[in-house]
Amino acid sequence: MAEQHGNVVGNMGDQKMNSENNYKFETIGLIGRYGDSTVGTLLNDLSAYLRNRKLNVLLDESTASILPDHKLKVADRHTLGEQCDLVIVLGGDGTLLNAVRSLSDYDIPVLGINRGRLGFLADIQPDEMEKYLDEIFEGKYITKERFLLHTTIEREGEQISESNAFNDVVVHKWDVARMIEVKIFIDNQYVNTMRSDGLIVSTPTGSTAYALSGGGPIINPSLNAIVLVPICPHTMSNRPIVIDGDSKIRIKVKNASQSQAQITCDGQINLGLVSGDYVLIGKKDKPVTLIHPANHDYYEILRAKLRWGERL
Amino acid sequence: MAEQHGNVVGNMGDQKMNSENNYKFETIGLIGRYGDSTVGTLLNDLSAYLRNRKLNVLLDESTASILPDHKLKVADRHTLGEQCDLVIVLGGDGTLLNAVRSLSDYDIPVLGINRGRLGFLADIQPDEMEKYLDEIFEGKYITKERFLLHTTIEREGEQISESNAFNDVVVHKWDVARMIEVKIFIDNQYVNTMRSDGLIVSTPTGSTAYALSGGGPIINPSLNAIVLVPICPHTMSNRPIVIDGDSKIRIKVKNASQSQAQITCDGQINLGLVSGDYVLIGKKDKPVTLIHPANHDYYEILRAKLRWGERL
Amino acid sequence: MAEQHGNVVGNMGDQKMNSENNYKFETIGLIGRYGDSTVGTLLNDLSAYLRNRKLNVLLDESTASILPDHKLKVADRHTLGEQCDLVIVLGGDGTLLNAVRSLSDYDIPVLGINRGRLGFLADIQPDEMEKYLDEIFEGKYITKERFLLHTTIEREGEQISESNAFNDVVVHKWDVARMIEVKIFIDNQYVNTMRSDGLIVSTPTGSTAYALSGGGPIINPSLNAIVLVPICPHTMSNRPIVIDGDSKIRIKVKNASQSQAQITCDGQINLGLVSGDYVLIGKKDKPVTLIHPANHDYYEILRAKLRWGERL
Amino acid sequence: MAEQHGNVVGNMGDQKMNSENNYKFETIGLIGRYGDSTVGTLLNDLSAYLRNRKLNVLLDESTASILPDHKLKVADRHTLGEQCDLVIVLGGDGTLLNAVRSLSDYDIPVLGINRGRLGFLADIQPDEMEKYLDEIFEGKYITKERFLLHTTIEREGEQISESNAFNDVVVHKWDVARMIEVKIFIDNQYVNTMRSDGLIVSTPTGSTAYALSGGGPIINPSLNAIVLVPICPHTMSNRPIVIDGDSKIRIKVKNASQSQAQITCDGQINLGLVSGDYVLIGKKDKPVTLIHPANHDYYEILRAKLRWGERL
Repeated sequence: MAEQHGNVVGNMGDQKMNSENNYKFETIGLIGRYGDSTVGTLLNDLSAYLRNRKLNVLLDESTASILPDHKLKVADRHTLGEQCDLVIVLGGDGTLLNAVRSLSDYDIPVLGINRGRLGFLADIQPDEMEKYLDEIFEGKYITKERFLLHTTIEREGEQISESNAFNDVVVHKWDVARMIEVKIFIDNQYVNTMRSDGLIVSTPTGSTAYALSGGGPIINPSLNAIVLVPICPHTMSNRPIVIDGDSKIRIKVKNASQSQAQITCDGQINLGLVSGDYVLIGKKDKPVTLIHPANHDYYEILRAKLRWGERL
Repeated sequence: MAEQHGNVVGNMGDQKMNSENNYKFETIGLIGRYGDSTVGTLLNDLSAYLRNRKLNVLLDESTASILPDHKLKVADRHTLGEQCDLVIVLGGDGTLLNAVRSLSDYDIPVLGINRGRLGFLADIQPDEMEKYLDEIFEGKYITKERFLLHTTIEREGEQISESNAFNDVVVHKWDVARMIEVKIFIDNQYVNTMRSDGLIVSTPTGSTAYALSGGGPIINPSLNAIVLVPICPHTMSNRPIVIDGDSKIRIKVKNASQSQAQITCDGQINLGLVSGDYVLIGKKDKPVTLIHPANHDYYEILRAKLRWGERL
Repeated sequence: MAEQHGNVVGNMGDQKMNSENNYKFETIGLIGRYGDSTVGTLLNDLSAYLRNRKLNVLLDESTASILPDHKLKVADRHTLGEQCDLVIVLGGDGTLLNAVRSLSDYDIPVLGINRGRLGFLADIQPDEMEKYLDEIFEGKYITKERFLLHTTIEREGEQISESNAFNDVVVHKWDVARMIEVKIFIDNQYVNTMRSDGLIVSTPTGSTAYALSGGGPIINPSLNAIVLVPICPHTMSNRPIVIDGDSKIRIKVKNASQSQAQITCDGQINLGLVSGDYVLIGKKDKPVTLIHPANHDYYEILRAKLRWGERL
Repeated sequence: MAEQHGNVVGNMGDQKMNSENNYKFETIGLIGRYGDSTVGTLLNDLSAYLRNRKLNVLLDESTASILPDHKLKVADRHTLGEQCDLVIVLGGDGTLLNAVRSLSDYDIPVLGINRGRLGFLADIQPDEMEKYLDEIFEGKYITKERFLLHTTIEREGEQISESNAFNDVVVHKWDVARMIEVKIFIDNQYVNTMRSDGLIVSTPTGSTAYALSGGGPIINPSLNAIVLVPICPHTMSNRPIVIDGDSKIRIKVKNASQSQAQITCDGQINLGLVSGDYVLIGKKDKPVTLIHPANHDYYEILRAKLRWGERL
């Protein structure tokens, strides 16, 4: 079964479709929500299902450590990336974000199964898991390519760090009540010098996360674009700017004092910035591929999550 | 001189550059601000300059009608489109918008000379006109391709009108204080049913116009994107959505009563809508080409127009 | 029973409480949703309940006209205002708004019974109607005083119209795509000249209605304040302004053309404005009194209506 | 001269006017911008002017320490508060904010002289200083009463700190990228549980400061109101709320981890919060009195600072 290639399932609107889904799913990696042992039952059901389909299953090391009775082969993240044809993530969007970031150097599609609450990324509910997995292993699914942001920090001419973000890179004030001042360049053109609580640089994927709280627009995930959203800017005309996804963004931190700004990737990875540091942000060369059921509908999820159509 | 082709002037960042500017400027059309006779002096200076360069000059009919002593050959808009290699517009962004719309079926670049106030589109000031025209006729300029929106209205299965917009197409309530209800589809996918004062569908060019007043983001004009901005939506989570520039947008007007909604293109062309009408909006097949001085800098204009960097 | 005076029910937080509710409810007026005959069953239940309590009941003329079998004494709005001690409105917030406006010259409290959907003003659901009416006629209720806006239009020195609004007075463009320009004065001090789609002048009651869609703040109804909310202003720093409830607002319409602006009260009453007209807005001298169940909680309604606390 | 009482200068619109200005200005305190020795020249001019008027002058201790050649009598903040009839602040709005806070327990009016840039609070420019001081010492001035916020923190039932704010009290996340969760009560009524980057509680004075960057309305300083502005709230309907100035606000910090939230008063005083802490905010019992020139016009300052009326 798993040898079958995916078939075309028609024009899916905004989704990127291969004319033929050429994935071959034989070895499946499983990643559960970090530190959450309640994922155990769902994981047992899933691994039973997969064994039944005669698929190889590898359980992520950190998930294994909190699930003593799993009886699955365990692998570290690197091995998952090397050996799996598909990684299934059990958890919410946050879990999927982390899984995608950690696997971003491997060419491996990711599928998300949510637990209870609908996610933008993990859109399969537990009670429909079997039905959709049947379809997916029979080749009925769609794939969506999404891009990550790759960020480096340059201090006194040297690159001091490097990280990836699937949602957003945020440069923000830290340990200080005052605004920070940043100087923004896009493709080496000076844009402006802005005083604010910070700046969110977001992918379309991240546009429905923190960037939305900051006043940014919703960006269809199929659009090759990046949005810059100022957080509580001092000047009211400092509005969100949407630019080409292939732009190179350079942010100079202009703080007088040290360590009053930080950079955060996907709300998780923090790095302190000092005055004069440059933050360089651009699209990561390798995209990530998400697997969705064939009937996946981005706008339906949007309507559900943002409660559109419900009257006040 | 005018036979010279434009030369490459280096990497201009976000602007679209031909590796060689292959325009040959021999016949120049002139369009002045509609109904504004004060444009006469500037127009005389400009036509003297152009005659001096041995270029053919054609004056737009409607501009000619209010400038009795122009001594120029007069042509209607169609003839301008057929015979000119370049149209120079004297006026503000509004004048240029109209000129671009009326010439949108011809393959002819447009250059804007502003009068006093800096424009997003017409970015040459009168006092620097000669200097920049010298450069442009010597081939030192950049070109920017921008797209228009093409809109048709379907009533009971038949197309009843067709129009173009360079900034935006707005579906809004009319002659009524109540909100209107519209149903939005993108690429045949249902997006949502929205109650609001209206919906702005804007090009990147229009993103700094009405769409910005409505809460939309700034979109870099080089991005192939369209933004949908709800006007005073009833549901607060009905936020601006940025989608691919090649999307097909379909809006169904759901008013109970007749003639309580209208569609406006670039704030100029109005058409009444009745319940059940479909408004179809997509990118016009033919882009427009704007000519800018070689040192044109989009972000510099943005900083100037939005007063970025000025402290409160 | 009905002779009993209301008793104090403790400190109700933001609500205005009389130390003793001194209303005597003997004659009750009933007003149903305009043109809506489905209100008939509820109205029959209510009138049976009231007759049972030996109260006099007067049915509003316009409601009576669509309910042929009501068997109640009918009265016009003026007679309701003159003879009733309490008016009960069956319908939503819109119905209550209209009832309050039409009774605003009489000193008569109003109670709203909603039909299905919770309202900001009409907060009693049909299935809890009897329970709450029992309490209210036994004197257990709270009263809230709210103010209306009184608006006059002055043309060439003469007052040409006069109207009241419970939610808001809106000066907006009409039959035109372009912005209008208005000059705003507060207590004879010049505030600014604003280009926009219009200006909403709202009471605290109206702050959760159209003003909220326009970007205004929520204002606790107990606050003596008025908010001015610009609709899609041209200048981004034209933000909502909250001023004292006793301020006198004067708006000069600066349109070049005639009849391109209108004034709307509570989204219902429309009057055309011409260039040079002055719109004068201030608090109406007579407040309106709303009757609520003793457990009325403004913030609970706010949470329910705005879906606070629900996760994305 | 200084013995003269101020005279009525007519109805000044929104300003609070005593029917007779009953201040007697004999001993004048001077406070300069903290740590800024460039204020020296202006301070010398001012002290010469005041000696000329035979007034006693006391120089603030911290200002004296950076101005070696001042030859003035020096006093600490407490002595200034005890002995002065008027304190003149040389600096911007920030300097005046600090001065007002430090003198908030004394009944002493404050006058601000700005240095170059117009302030909302310090509205006298150096070049018009003498002219306005002449008028003020002749009794031609207006006074404006403004209120401060008084904040206490309760930890496990005990009050652990107390502070004042003239602009705003901000509860915000600290040292953490994730949102914080706060539970808000107003006058002991539960309002909502909000996830956000923080909450700004602002006076009308502060409504044109950080609260405006966060999306809050402008509040006329004469209004007795407080505004709560959520910072980047997770739920889009969590909008600014304007409440009565005499309300008691209670905020419960619901963080899981310790020290991931802080409270900041006027962007200056920081205190760490732990999970379970209560922040109590209310109007300080003693208002502050600002002295302004007789022609002071709040809306004129607003127009200048927010660049209203300037075209895009």
